[in-house]
Amino acid sequence: MTLKTLGAKAAAALDQELMSTCAFSIDQLMELAGLSVSQAIYRVHPLNKGRRVLVACGPGNNGGDGLVAARHLFYYGYQPTIFYPKRSKNELYHRLAKQLEDLQVPFVDDFQSALNSTDHVVDAIFGFSFSGEVREPFPKVIQALEETKIPITSVDAPSSWNIEDGPPKSGLGSAFMPTALVSLTAPKPLVKYFKGRHFVGGRFVSPSIAKKYDFEVPEYPGVDQVVEVPTTNEKL
Amino acid sequence: MTLKTLGAKAAAALDQELMSTCAFSIDQLMELAGLSVSQAIYRVHPLNKGRRVLVACGPGNNGGDGLVAARHLFYYGYQPTIFYPKRSKNELYHRLAKQLEDLQVPFVDDFQSALNSTDHVVDAIFGFSFSGEVREPFPKVIQALEETKIPITSVDAPSSWNIEDGPPKSGLGSAFMPTALVSLTAPKPLVKYFKGRHFVGGRFVSPSIAKKYDFEVPEYPGVDQVVEVPTTNEKL
Repeated sequence: MTLKTLGAKAAAALDQELMSTCAFSIDQLMELAGLSVSQAIYRVHPLNKGRRVLVACGPGNNGGDGLVAARHLFYYGYQPTIFYPKRSKNELYHRLAKQLEDLQVPFVDDFQSALNSTDHVVDAIFGFSFSGEVREPFPKVIQALEETKIPITSVDAPSSWNIEDGPPKSGLGSAFMPTALVSLTAPKPLVKYFKGRHFVGGRFVSPSIAKKYDFEVPEYPGVDQVVEVPTTNEKL
Repeated sequence: MTLKTLGAKAAAALDQELMSTCAFSIDQLMELAGLSVSQAIYRVHPLNKGRRVLVACGPGNNGGDGLVAARHLFYYGYQPTIFYPKRSKNELYHRLAKQLEDLQVPFVDDFQSALNSTDHVVDAIFGFSFSGEVREPFPKVIQALEETKIPITSVDAPSSWNIEDGPPKSGLGSAFMPTALVSLTAPKPLVKYFKGRHFVGGRFVSPSIAKKYDFEVPEYPGVDQVVEVPTTNEKL
């Protein structure tokens, strides 16, 4: 089975439609998306592999998904640490950060140092709306993710990858290959360059929306909010 | 182990605190609460016992939890039907109903007829803020729930029960005993009158809040949003 993918423009249109005609609030969608991510991490990196999880959050929705995932990971028994250098001014993100602060989850400024003392990394830096250049302060972060041997789970896209074309041909990010990828709602075209464990999450897409955007919703088992799917193993 | 309980006033204060100082939105809390309920139903009434679930929703937050649970049940493979005779004017509830309508989930007006063709019932009529009289059009509904042999899962409280004192001493609701009860955040004092399967849901209470309100958060296994706890079997 090869899952159909959703390009950057289609993914943005789907998100807009979910929050307008489909009547979801961003709070709801982000809660369910972040929950999916947390469930994938529980499988990729069970508690007995080490409880310390460093969550790198970007300035947009991808970072918000990371903040929600971190909260759920805390409740599962992990010890999350948050790197969130460019905070959004949107009140939703303030609230998501406050919810973590109330759990005494530390927010750190030094990514490299945090990376040296974690068991797993969540890459929630850039999602499907990323394009172009990796802006400050993230180039160093991407480079560290590229070089580390610590397993990484990326949310929706390995950060720095082009949504359609995958990893950059050279330079920063060209050798970045996370351990796992959680595609939210539907995989993006970049998955064909991804070699690792692939999950789909976001169990809130109605059959009519999936039909309209021409992708298949994979069969989620039981009450799971995430499902592992085969990785497309096209050569880089 | 006997779980500590949370009276009606304390439960209301906790809810307010979650949405103010704890920075949760009602969308978030209701999504997680409804998700908990759906996971409990998946255990009490697995799909092979019959997919038809009638969700009776009251006019307030309890009804909102029911609407969210119904959506998740749909995604698990159930066939929910909604009885929601007193719709809230609040836009959140409009949106939750719209999300179900987009899934072609039927909303019905005749409770008794719907009861005759379901495999399970979710009682999301009244929650911890209920007191006093059961108002129209719900007396007939409570009576039907009292008389039916179809298994029922109640959300937070068996509807018509007093939050502190349990079932009415006589008359409507006095013989109402659901099959299962899902206590949200913490059990209410009425649980000591409840004989059935008891779950606790709402995995979003921080240790500091639990301490402040003097209740224990039960240990949730894995990524579960609900946990079954022993039923207190005090005689009625």
